[in-house]
Amino acid sequence: MNVFQKKFTAIWPNMSAVGSVQLIDQRFLPHQMVIETVNSLEGMAVAIEQMHVRGAPLIGISAAFGVAIAAYRVHEETHSPSNWREQLYAAIARLKRTRPTAVNLFWALEEQRKILDGTQSLLSAKEALWSNALALMEDDLHACHSIGMHGLKLIKEIADKKRFDGVIDPIVNILTHCNAGWLACVDYGTATAPMYLAHDAGIKIHVWVDETRPRNQGAKLTAWELGQHGVPHTLIPDNAGGHLMQHGMVDLVIVGADRVTRTGDAANKIGTYLKALAAVDNHVPFYVALPKSTFDGSLRDGIHEIPIEARGGDEVRFIDGISITGQCVEVLICPNTTKALNYGFDVTPARLISGLITDRGVCSATESAITALFPDI
Amino acid sequence: MNVFQKKFTAIWPNMSAVGSVQLIDQRFLPHQMVIETVNSLEGMAVAIEQMHVRGAPLIGISAAFGVAIAAYRVHEETHSPSNWREQLYAAIARLKRTRPTAVNLFWALEEQRKILDGTQSLLSAKEALWSNALALMEDDLHACHSIGMHGLKLIKEIADKKRFDGVIDPIVNILTHCNAGWLACVDYGTATAPMYLAHDAGIKIHVWVDETRPRNQGAKLTAWELGQHGVPHTLIPDNAGGHLMQHGMVDLVIVGADRVTRTGDAANKIGTYLKALAAVDNHVPFYVALPKSTFDGSLRDGIHEIPIEARGGDEVRFIDGISITGQCVEVLICPNTTKALNYGFDVTPARLISGLITDRGVCSATESAITALFPDI
Repeated sequence: MNVFQKKFTAIWPNMSAVGSVQLIDQRFLPHQMVIETVNSLEGMAVAIEQMHVRGAPLIGISAAFGVAIAAYRVHEETHSPSNWREQLYAAIARLKRTRPTAVNLFWALEEQRKILDGTQSLLSAKEALWSNALALMEDDLHACHSIGMHGLKLIKEIADKKRFDGVIDPIVNILTHCNAGWLACVDYGTATAPMYLAHDAGIKIHVWVDETRPRNQGAKLTAWELGQHGVPHTLIPDNAGGHLMQHGMVDLVIVGADRVTRTGDAANKIGTYLKALAAVDNHVPFYVALPKSTFDGSLRDGIHEIPIEARGGDEVRFIDGISITGQCVEVLICPNTTKALNYGFDVTPARLISGLITDRGVCSATESAITALFPDI
Repeated sequence: MNVFQKKFTAIWPNMSAVGSVQLIDQRFLPHQMVIETVNSLEGMAVAIEQMHVRGAPLIGISAAFGVAIAAYRVHEETHSPSNWREQLYAAIARLKRTRPTAVNLFWALEEQRKILDGTQSLLSAKEALWSNALALMEDDLHACHSIGMHGLKLIKEIADKKRFDGVIDPIVNILTHCNAGWLACVDYGTATAPMYLAHDAGIKIHVWVDETRPRNQGAKLTAWELGQHGVPHTLIPDNAGGHLMQHGMVDLVIVGADRVTRTGDAANKIGTYLKALAAVDNHVPFYVALPKSTFDGSLRDGIHEIPIEARGGDEVRFIDGISITGQCVEVLICPNTTKALNYGFDVTPARLISGLITDRGVCSATESAITALFPDI
């Protein structure tokens, strides 16, 4: 989507060097737009682990490129390229250990492993892994666009209903949690795709952006994305959504997901579950937007089966931002002896979800509906 | 409770000057313990408005002292003390405008107005208003202690049940939101009173402290209070409570309140409602702790009748803390053009509340139970 009036994606092949990509190092947003060149396996592993890139789809694409980059470096970095295949399996294993919750990571690495299994030489592996990473990137772009088209209909229906109810020039108020925007994918985003397409289609929308503690992806990334593209929005504390819903200020909730079971339980950024509870309590439709790669067809019970990442407590204890003098500063917000616990995700049970907005259409969060649309998960 | 091993309260009469109080200026906690002397009406109005003091009971006590302080200053500040009564009514009106949600403010000012109505001279008004402020302070202290004693039984029951279920040396995990601690009252706190008394009685407890965005009263005040008194606790983002409850990590939720209707709807810090929803969804008992002065017997429908304060958006956009060099710094956490909305409170409907822990005992959040215990509201 647009950044400073120019089209951007979250990751792209480096045009000035083979076997190398460029990506937006999201740790510096919204205060600085830093572009990082990644041309080593370890560089990509760290970029995922340390959240230079984040968001389930982008983690998958980045990992796929990580394997391809590793293939390009084998020849340069070792004197015994006869073990190139083992090195690439090791590369996949290294990338698998970067983050535990988003299933797209494991899915994308599995796709690359299949490619690797089918190649006979390092040269062909390089080309095939790179082509496949590019293809996964293209697929994600198209999947997000499809999610946008299907979600757009939901937004349009709400606008039409408001107009039918006598509202002149209705605005559709959409709440979202965390960043499931184009910065979490390649372009469009998952949860944001319907918002961008609705906005671009001239439907008036306004987005309530949950700041999304502890890492503030909403305040930092979603607010920045929407602002750059010109979509009206307001930042709110994560605590505010229930009150807004009680007072009719939210028409629709759309969030992304890091892993969705075949039964429709959805792991997403911690706090999503609380918004789903409030949505149900106030009869506000609650949708989860995701591409096929976010389904984990092997799981049935999200709460007990999806591994939830616990990150360091310092992500809660310290907050970074820009000081009045323009410096990027990290500040301690609690007594220095206080310890903190930091789970990254929670699971919203399917029973609280109005529907899933997927690249193949909107379906209810039930096993029968999901497997009807996705017999291949 | 204890601060650096010494007993402290949140406000106290200034022993070195008549008609003057001292209080902890809570804006600087936990990084600095600043004691402020307040000896003018406007000083107290600003201390309430700007949240040097906060928390429903403490707002009430502070306002009561504000009226008494105004009486002490009339003689000094005007050459026509014949209009002293009008000046004190104006003082009450000024204090009424400081904060809209906590009913204790209006209740305490009404108590002082009755005293004022019954006095014949400025001299007698001074003494009577001061004595009454002292009495309200004492009452609050006793009320909080009673809340503690009643709540202690609930905690003990949970510990006993865990022991009965075979847990050796059980720990009771209690989640709280915002600061309804002694810093919100005079001593003990409302929500924290049962925790302090249980801890002091040797029952093992552990408190999950919601950081409580946007002003972080949990991270700043509750964590500090509990730490100073030696109560085990862990800081968590407001987003985390639902996940913890899903996984059996919370035995009990206790929060405070800013206003409770005669039907049991409870206004408290924004985000409380989301925790109540999660508690109900996970069969975790959810209690609201309050003294009589927090009831508003005139209201029946909390969601539509309790006025909710909207504060400046910059409280969301900026966060303050201590930098690595020990400076108190405020940082911007979103793009500088992003606007934010900042409601201070939300209302938890009575149907989600397991019970009210009051100074007269525990009762269900229903009109019949409330008015049976409090026929005088």
